[in-house]
Amino acid sequence: MTLRSSNPRAVTRADVAARAGVSAAVVSYVVNDGPRPVAPATRERVLAAITELGYRPNAAARALRLGSSELLGLMVPDNRNPFVNELAHAVEVAAERRGYSLILANAGRSLDREQRQMRHLVARQVEGVIMVPMSREVNAAELRAAGIPLTILTHTITVTGVGSVSTDIHAGAKLALEHLIGHGHRSIALVIGRGAGAEPDGREVAWRECQEAAGLAQGPVFRADFTREGGYAAGLAFLAASPRPSAIFTSSDMQAVGVLHALHEAGVGVPAEVAVVSFDGSPESAFAWPVLTTVKQPIEAMARAAADQVLGLIGNPGQGPSHQQFPAELVIGRSCGCP
Amino acid sequence: MTLRSSNPRAVTRADVAARAGVSAAVVSYVVNDGPRPVAPATRERVLAAITELGYRPNAAARALRLGSSELLGLMVPDNRNPFVNELAHAVEVAAERRGYSLILANAGRSLDREQRQMRHLVARQVEGVIMVPMSREVNAAELRAAGIPLTILTHTITVTGVGSVSTDIHAGAKLALEHLIGHGHRSIALVIGRGAGAEPDGREVAWRECQEAAGLAQGPVFRADFTREGGYAAGLAFLAASPRPSAIFTSSDMQAVGVLHALHEAGVGVPAEVAVVSFDGSPESAFAWPVLTTVKQPIEAMARAAADQVLGLIGNPGQGPSHQQFPAELVIGRSCGCP
Repeated sequence: MTLRSSNPRAVTRADVAARAGVSAAVVSYVVNDGPRPVAPATRERVLAAITELGYRPNAAARALRLGSSELLGLMVPDNRNPFVNELAHAVEVAAERRGYSLILANAGRSLDREQRQMRHLVARQVEGVIMVPMSREVNAAELRAAGIPLTILTHTITVTGVGSVSTDIHAGAKLALEHLIGHGHRSIALVIGRGAGAEPDGREVAWRECQEAAGLAQGPVFRADFTREGGYAAGLAFLAASPRPSAIFTSSDMQAVGVLHALHEAGVGVPAEVAVVSFDGSPESAFAWPVLTTVKQPIEAMARAAADQVLGLIGNPGQGPSHQQFPAELVIGRSCGCP
Repeated sequence: MTLRSSNPRAVTRADVAARAGVSAAVVSYVVNDGPRPVAPATRERVLAAITELGYRPNAAARALRLGSSELLGLMVPDNRNPFVNELAHAVEVAAERRGYSLILANAGRSLDREQRQMRHLVARQVEGVIMVPMSREVNAAELRAAGIPLTILTHTITVTGVGSVSTDIHAGAKLALEHLIGHGHRSIALVIGRGAGAEPDGREVAWRECQEAAGLAQGPVFRADFTREGGYAAGLAFLAASPRPSAIFTSSDMQAVGVLHALHEAGVGVPAEVAVVSFDGSPESAFAWPVLTTVKQPIEAMARAAADQVLGLIGNPGQGPSHQQFPAELVIGRSCGCP
C-alpha cells in the first residue's frame, strides 16, 4: 500500500511542481519559506497550484523536511495511576498551547518496558521527551545520542546533565507531619514506596526529621507499591502492628485510598481512632471517605514548566540543564481530625 | 534545524548509497524489499554499507516510503476519566502486541475539540482510529475522505458505514435491575448521562422495562455528567426527592462514587437505607466504600477486538463495517445489600 492508494486526495509536491512549472525543490522553498529565495512571480504560481490542487504538506513529510515532528513524548510509569493521568492531562494541555502533540508512552511499571518505549520515542523522532521516571535509574543515553532533549518531571531525581521540574516533597511532607503533630499525635506510621534508590525519599526524610524535632520515637514504616492495592496491603500490616500508631502519613493518595479501605473493613474509625494525611492532591482524594487531608502538588504549573523547559532545549543542545522546584500546599479534608 | 544537526548519528540513505556505490533508489529497494529486484551481490554491498554506517531507516521516512506509520489514533472523550483510561490502557496493550503505537487524542468533553483532534490524527497519518465517542454525533467524513478506517468503541452507537465494538449495555443493565428487584426494592432511581441523542440509552431502556415487568411504578431519573462531581450532584438531588426510593442504579462507576459521597455526607447508610448498583467495573469500584456491586464491561476483550477490527480494515477500504457486541457481567460487592 502506498500513501496515494490509501488516500485518494493525496497530492504530492511533484504534482504541485508540475502544475506550477517549477522544480519540486522550489515548491519546498515556498512551503518552508526557505532555505533559498523564490522570485515573487514564481512564488505566486506555486501558491496558486497549491490552492488549486488542495496540496497539504503532510506531517511525516514535514517532519523529514523540517527535522521537526511537532511531537513531544511523555513517558509515564503507569497510565492507570489517576495521579499520573492528571499530570499527563496537564502536560497535554501545556503542549497543545505550544502547538505540539503528545505521544504517550507507558512503562507499565517495568524498567524493561520503559527502555523499550524510550527507543520507540526516538524512532518516532519526537522533538523532546518529558519523563515521569519509574525510579532513579534513568537511562538517558539513547536520547542524548539522538540529540533529543529530556526533562524529568515530579521526582526529586537528579540525572547528570538532565533538567528537571519537581515538587519540593521534603517541604510538602513537613507540612503534613507538622499538621499531624499539631493534632497531638505522638506516634505516626509512614506508608511509602519501595524506593530502591541510593538516597532516601524526601518524604521519608521529612517524616524522620519532624518526629526527631518533636521528640517522638520513630514510628513504623510500611513499604508498598504506589497503588490502591499497595496501600491496602500496607493498611493490613498497619492493623497488625502493636502498639498501633494513632496516625498515618501516606506518600500518595492511591496508597491512602487502599489504607482507608483496610481501616474501614476492620471497623477502625478515621480520624477518630486513626488519623490519615496523604500526598498528591489528586481528584480522587476529594471523593475518598472521609475526604483526605493531602499535600497538593501544583500539577498544572509543573506541567507548563516541563513543557517550557523541554521546548526551550530543542535546537539548543549545548544549553545546561535547569532544575525548577515547586512548593506543595496542605489541603485540609476530614481524615486528619480537623472539624 | 535539520535532522542531521539535531542527530549527530543520523546516517541518510544517500550516505549508504554513496558507500555502496549504488543509487539511493537501490538502497530503498533493499530496505523495503522491493518494489524492484536487486542483484544479490548489490544487495550484499548495500547491507554491508548499512551495517558499517549504522544506518537505521527512521520512522517518518518509513511512513513516507511504505505509506505506513504503524500508528493508531485513539480518541477518548475525557482522559481524566479512570474508566476511559482503563480502556486506553487495554487498547495500548492490544495495539502494541500487533506492532502499533498509539497516539492518544483527548476530546476533553468538547465536541469542537473532538473535531480538532480528529483533524490532527489525519494530519499525523495514523493508519486507523479507534474512537470512544463523546456522543452519537460522530463526524467520520474527514477520516473517510483520507481513507483512514475508524472503529467505534464502548457506546452502542451506530454510524453509517462505521464498524463498532460495544458492550451489550441493555442486557448488562437488566442484570443490575433484576438484582435490585430480587433484593425486594420496589422503587429504584436512575442516575444516567444527559444523553442528547435521538435513541434513549440502553441502560435507561432496561431500567424502564424491568420496572414495568415487575409491576413497579417508574422511579425518578437524575441526569448528570459521567464524573464524580456529576454523581455527587445527582446524589444531592436524590436526597431531596420525596418519597425517596430505596435503591439507585447509576450508569457509571464515577457517578456512583459521587452518589456514595453525597449519601455518606447525609449520614444515609449504604446499603441499609439505600442500595446502589453501578455500571462499568472499573478498579475504583472495588475500593469504593462500601465496595460497589457493578456491571463489568469486558474491557480487555473489547480493546483487542477493536484493535483487530481497525487493523483488519487497513488496506481493505471496501470491506463492510462489522459490529461486535460483548456481554457484561454482574460483579457482586457490598453496596447492593448482599451479605
